[in-house]
Amino acid sequence: MKTVIPVELPQDQYDITIATDGLQYLGAWLAATGKRGKVLLVSNPVIFKHYGQTALNSLTEAGFDVCQCILPAGERYKTLRSIEKIHTVAFENRLERSSTMVALGGGVIGDMTGFAAATWLRGIAVVQVPTSLLAMVDASMGGKTGVNHPHGKNLIGAFHQPSLVLIDPNVLSTLPGREFRAGMAEVIKYGIIWNEGLFEQLEQAKRLDQMRYVGEELLHDILKHSCQAKADVVSQDEKEAGLRAILNYGHTIGHAVESLTGYKLVNHGEAVGIGMVAAGAIATTLNHWPQTATDRQLTLIQKASLPTQLPENINIDDILITLRSDKKVKSGKVRFVLPKRIGEAFVTDQVTDDTIRSVLEKMF
Amino acid sequence: MKTVIPVELPQDQYDITIATDGLQYLGAWLAATGKRGKVLLVSNPVIFKHYGQTALNSLTEAGFDVCQCILPAGERYKTLRSIEKIHTVAFENRLERSSTMVALGGGVIGDMTGFAAATWLRGIAVVQVPTSLLAMVDASMGGKTGVNHPHGKNLIGAFHQPSLVLIDPNVLSTLPGREFRAGMAEVIKYGIIWNEGLFEQLEQAKRLDQMRYVGEELLHDILKHSCQAKADVVSQDEKEAGLRAILNYGHTIGHAVESLTGYKLVNHGEAVGIGMVAAGAIATTLNHWPQTATDRQLTLIQKASLPTQLPENINIDDILITLRSDKKVKSGKVRFVLPKRIGEAFVTDQVTDDTIRSVLEKMF
Ligand SMILES: NC(=O)c1ccc[n+]([C@@H]2O[C@H](COP(=O)([O-])OP(=O)(O)OC[C@H]3O[C@@H](n4cnc5c(N)ncnc54)[C@H](O)[C@@H]3O)[C@@H](O)[C@H]2O)c1
Ligand SMILES: NC(=O)c1ccc[n+]([C@@H]2O[C@H](COP(=O)([O-])OP(=O)(O)OC[C@H]3O[C@@H](n4cnc5c(N)ncnc54)[C@H](O)[C@@H]3O)[C@@H](O)[C@H]2O)c1
Ligand SMILES: [Zn+2]
Ligand SMILES: [Zn+2]
Repeated sequence: MKTVIPVELPQDQYDITIATDGLQYLGAWLAATGKRGKVLLVSNPVIFKHYGQTALNSLTEAGFDVCQCILPAGERYKTLRSIEKIHTVAFENRLERSSTMVALGGGVIGDMTGFAAATWLRGIAVVQVPTSLLAMVDASMGGKTGVNHPHGKNLIGAFHQPSLVLIDPNVLSTLPGREFRAGMAEVIKYGIIWNEGLFEQLEQAKRLDQMRYVGEELLHDILKHSCQAKADVVSQDEKEAGLRAILNYGHTIGHAVESLTGYKLVNHGEAVGIGMVAAGAIATTLNHWPQTATDRQLTLIQKASLPTQLPENINIDDILITLRSDKKVKSGKVRFVLPKRIGEAFVTDQVTDDTIRSVLEKMF
Repeated sequence: MKTVIPVELPQDQYDITIATDGLQYLGAWLAATGKRGKVLLVSNPVIFKHYGQTALNSLTEAGFDVCQCILPAGERYKTLRSIEKIHTVAFENRLERSSTMVALGGGVIGDMTGFAAATWLRGIAVVQVPTSLLAMVDASMGGKTGVNHPHGKNLIGAFHQPSLVLIDPNVLSTLPGREFRAGMAEVIKYGIIWNEGLFEQLEQAKRLDQMRYVGEELLHDILKHSCQAKADVVSQDEKEAGLRAILNYGHTIGHAVESLTGYKLVNHGEAVGIGMVAAGAIATTLNHWPQTATDRQLTLIQKASLPTQLPENINIDDILITLRSDKKVKSGKVRFVLPKRIGEAFVTDQVTDDTIRSVLEKMF
């Protein structure tokens, strides 16, 4: 199975290719975009062990001159220090303006490699080869790149579109189950904010909690519709002036929960699951969408074995304080994305603290 | 005297305002672009001592909420560490996407502030208030921003256009003479590659080596024509695809000399002076422009009290090796910018090592 999704931006155009066993064509498909010369592959030890050799061979066979930079795994290494390491390898191997960086990994590797490419010689090409479900349906597309600041996540970054996104669903076979479910939260998100058909397809699935229960065809469809949703939104609003904000559905409360639990107890996808439950309940409270829709969403999130309640020790006041410090706050007002119906969402800054509080109180 | 030069780019449009005593209008003119809210002023201790208070007062009076970050002076602090410091102040003062950074300083402060703004929340506005002649006529415009990598200059960076460039020629009164002459090298460069009239005006000046000998009117003209030259070139080729390369006139050999003398013995402008002498001689050797033009250029460079000979201990083989490692090398070929006539230049990769060597041998 192979699907190509073209992304059309005012300044850039690139393809997202979803292809079973596609990794072995990485070199050929990169060469097909017209690229030649040097490639710096960035990955982490776990992912490189599984897929590094296939990627390297494919690039070398296609005539590229390949070097590599293997960074330690984990969000805590998503720092400017790691960017300097990538740049040092770039320097040692004399990467030129015409050279390419390839990110082989999850969102952490993807964000860092994208930012390193954005800032090396003021911008060289980057190819995203996402290996986690979250990176496949979200992080690898849309051009957001960056690292964390000691004081906050993703505060440092740049917009830098990839030249190519290559998704090989097979690599998900080694992805830990919890990471798979985290990605599924974003998939469900697309169903709610953009694609009712995707939502219904997910409803029909028996299980959504592990790759091996999902089946190759449904997985391909999930990837296709999710990537298409993100591509649609991003190409209508590359720099997050308006529409793109709907991609933050479930992320307002989600980010607060993630941050208050130290990014460990609850991971990003789990937090988004919790955040979608909250946002759905807020929308119902404000009469924007019906209780039945909130229920259908809840069932789906549960089917993905994602949490739907707040962690026990979390404090609602802390959540409210954290919301105000979010970088998406505009002149002091917290922005929420709320669903209108399954398949459509809107942005509002008209949710009062009282409404948030009353909804969260029921989520323990 | 006040001159406004509009810069029109595909994505951006901004004004370069050259105005005697303009610094006190910084706040008002920034407000006139529609900006409100928070401003982070970045400077170094020397410059801040002279001009910081005027800038701060002007911003505060115009209603901005101002904070500051004072970084140590010097090229060796143009690093990712300093960017992190700026970002920390940005974090502490909760700079939002709608906030602005203001660079009050020479090219070092300008490049860093521009890069910090380019990468904070994936890009916020930056205003350039250049205080050195070099920054006024070159570094503050065109959107190149960045820092040095431990292994090389300006390897890390991004394109990020300013929202406003404010040039107050008065601030040059405190600029050390050697820095003034360094900037004059770039001014002479614009005469040769772009504006014959500017070149002739410089020829008519009595002295070009110190601010106080260059009257107010000539200085204003120099700034106006130099900024216009850069604006013309940059707006025709924002991302250095072609034409913009001519701005590197004198910089090919210049960079090699700078780097081989450890960026100390010879500063950037002095190196560019030497580089222009070399490039002019190469052009004459290859019959691209007449000996008389080379001579006129030499006279002008000498009038600015810039060096026209290679430093004694430099080795020509080292220069040739350094040329190959320059980041502007495309697939192994060294690119030279050569003059065609006074006011016009072109780019070529057809200069042989033998030609370079024969010209350099005569420059001791
Ligand atoms: N740029 C964007 O638009 C965007 C969007 C969403 C998230 N993000 C960022 O993405 C990051 C999260 O991404 P993530 O969830 O992929 O985290 P991750 O990159 O840390 O990957 C999760 C874990 O799975 C492992 N892994 C990944 N693929 C594997 C595979 N095929 N086999 C075995 N192990 C594998 C990784 O080593 C890691 O331990 C965050 O830093 C987040 O800020 C960015
Ligand atoms: N972005 C670009 O397009 C571009 C172009 C050219 C150069 N640059 C960069 O610019 C830097 C060089 O700029 P520079 O020559 O301005 O160096 P600089 O910023 O270091 O300033 C030179 C010295 O003059 C002092 N100074 C500046 N203005 C002063 C004033 N009004 N009064 C008293 N002292 C003053 C500074 O403190 C410093 O000591 C380099 O890092 C170079 O890479 C960038
Ligand atoms: Zn997310
Ligand atoms: Zn220069």
